[in-house]
Amino acid sequence: MGPHPTVAAIRLAVRRVLHDVLSSSAEPHPVVLAACSGGADSMALAAALAFEAPRLGVRAGAVTVDHGLQDGSAVRAQEVAGRLRALGLDPVDAVGVTVGRQGGPEAAARDARYAALDAAADRRGAAAVLLGHTRDDQAETVLLGLARGSGIRSLSGMAAVSGAGGRYRRPFLLLDRDTVRQGCLAQGITVWEDPHNHDPAYTRSRVRHEALPVLEKSLGKGVVEALARTAQLSRDDADALDQWAADAQADAAGDDGSLDVRRLATLPAAVRRRVLRRTAIAAGSPPGFLFARHIEEVDRLVTGWHGQKALNLPGGVAVLRANGRLVFSPS
Amino acid sequence: MGPHPTVAAIRLAVRRVLHDVLSSSAEPHPVVLAACSGGADSMALAAALAFEAPRLGVRAGAVTVDHGLQDGSAVRAQEVAGRLRALGLDPVDAVGVTVGRQGGPEAAARDARYAALDAAADRRGAAAVLLGHTRDDQAETVLLGLARGSGIRSLSGMAAVSGAGGRYRRPFLLLDRDTVRQGCLAQGITVWEDPHNHDPAYTRSRVRHEALPVLEKSLGKGVVEALARTAQLSRDDADALDQWAADAQADAAGDDGSLDVRRLATLPAAVRRRVLRRTAIAAGSPPGFLFARHIEEVDRLVTGWHGQKALNLPGGVAVLRANGRLVFSPS
Repeated sequence: MGPHPTVAAIRLAVRRVLHDVLSSSAEPHPVVLAACSGGADSMALAAALAFEAPRLGVRAGAVTVDHGLQDGSAVRAQEVAGRLRALGLDPVDAVGVTVGRQGGPEAAARDARYAALDAAADRRGAAAVLLGHTRDDQAETVLLGLARGSGIRSLSGMAAVSGAGGRYRRPFLLLDRDTVRQGCLAQGITVWEDPHNHDPAYTRSRVRHEALPVLEKSLGKGVVEALARTAQLSRDDADALDQWAADAQADAAGDDGSLDVRRLATLPAAVRRRVLRRTAIAAGSPPGFLFARHIEEVDRLVTGWHGQKALNLPGGVAVLRANGRLVFSPS
Repeated sequence: MGPHPTVAAIRLAVRRVLHDVLSSSAEPHPVVLAACSGGADSMALAAALAFEAPRLGVRAGAVTVDHGLQDGSAVRAQEVAGRLRALGLDPVDAVGVTVGRQGGPEAAARDARYAALDAAADRRGAAAVLLGHTRDDQAETVLLGLARGSGIRSLSGMAAVSGAGGRYRRPFLLLDRDTVRQGCLAQGITVWEDPHNHDPAYTRSRVRHEALPVLEKSLGKGVVEALARTAQLSRDDADALDQWAADAQADAAGDDGSLDVRRLATLPAAVRRRVLRRTAIAAGSPPGFLFARHIEEVDRLVTGWHGQKALNLPGGVAVLRANGRLVFSPS
């Protein structure tokens, strides 16, 4: 008798990623780490990695990060590390981090977590770090991006492969959370549910427990799948438009980096605005402070020219139209 | 003392559109019609049109459509027509339609309504038909498109200018519903609320009364604005990618319409899939039945070629790879 269908689906997803890691690794027996909070999704991931890795000659380990945000979290992290070792994973690291405040509690925790995962991967010489994000997490990420209203890049969710050198892999991005959780139950895996996942003080928790259930009620059960598909399509579209913008920028830029207004004017608005944004960032304007309204104002130097004076962008970048060219320079 | 700020905002929105219609019309005194259900949004629209049109030399009329879906709807339509005439609009048409079943109740009602508006505009020689959709309607449309999960074109909502020759105009697309409704109150305009707008049997009604309020609670008050901004950005992006795909199709197609596989392979996935979709539709595959999975299968003839046999697409279109070309033909 084979494994439970959900366990088979989980293992297949991990196996595919391991094949991919092996095919792109110079090392015949690469180290692959599972990032594991002790929750159901990442415990299922760790168990599948422990099962599949030896069959493929992969050395499998794990990392669990103690964010230090709850009483007893250090003890909890050691318990999780013990469970990961009991699955046969080696090395297993429990790493403590200090969460700052930059960008709000969720962003700060994420930044600290990825810094710790990067450090652990470097220390262990890992070829890949697997993350347990499911299709449901992807749908939540798309909704969070939608709320920013900043265009299709923010709708494109999480990538199946990301990070420097494609280090991070998300095998479960096409699996729904129910499948993964049933897989845990079927294998009798002990899991620990982070109470933050249910804390309505966190935006993601509200999206998960309030927004998505109501969206499913209003729009039908397919909403999570539709959001995940939107992520993939938006990512491909955003990549194509970025490529066009890079080509168009190279085409319109002179040796001094200034842009030819006539060439800009022939571009579709979506591409022209991307060229302007790229050029402003290259000139020193910080991406996080450069908003659509700034770019629209620069765009009017091209499409609504009536002799405007120089504009000032965030980061002390001035934009001036002179002799049929846009010049970006320190203001 | 000027008008209430909301009334000023409503009239300004209509005045801008009338200027635009005048600037693109050969006729110095064009006819412009307001499409009016009798609800608050479209009554505000009709009142603003009645106020602004004489100042600009525009001849202003209105059309109200009786969908015949409720008892007494014909009498109701005559009442609305009477109110529109009382605003000074002339001509005013009350037009009855028969709603079919194609595509579900909401799509069928919309199809019948636009057919009646087109006919009324033709009969009256109208240069434009104004529609009262607000930013809130736009946000609902984006959510409905998101639920289809079919990419950024379905996220792009309603256009400010649409229809044959840009006949339809939506002056309120950047105004929120509250502003428009307060404008009605401030002018003492009698309105009639369509009970279908509150009927949870209709998807749009559920989106309006269930989904959007919960999204605002989870994600913050800016959600409607973010969705409307997403519509505009997605529309620009989709237009740019369609343009690229049209150019790439012309570039890859031979005299017989077949596509050069090597040229296709150099395109980003998002553009290549659009080229394949355009070509399939041009060969006779009906757009409404041509899904992403069909296009992905055709795409594998380019990116995953291992000697596959011909594929069959909806509408009896066969796709075959032969001699380095994709040939689309009747199957």
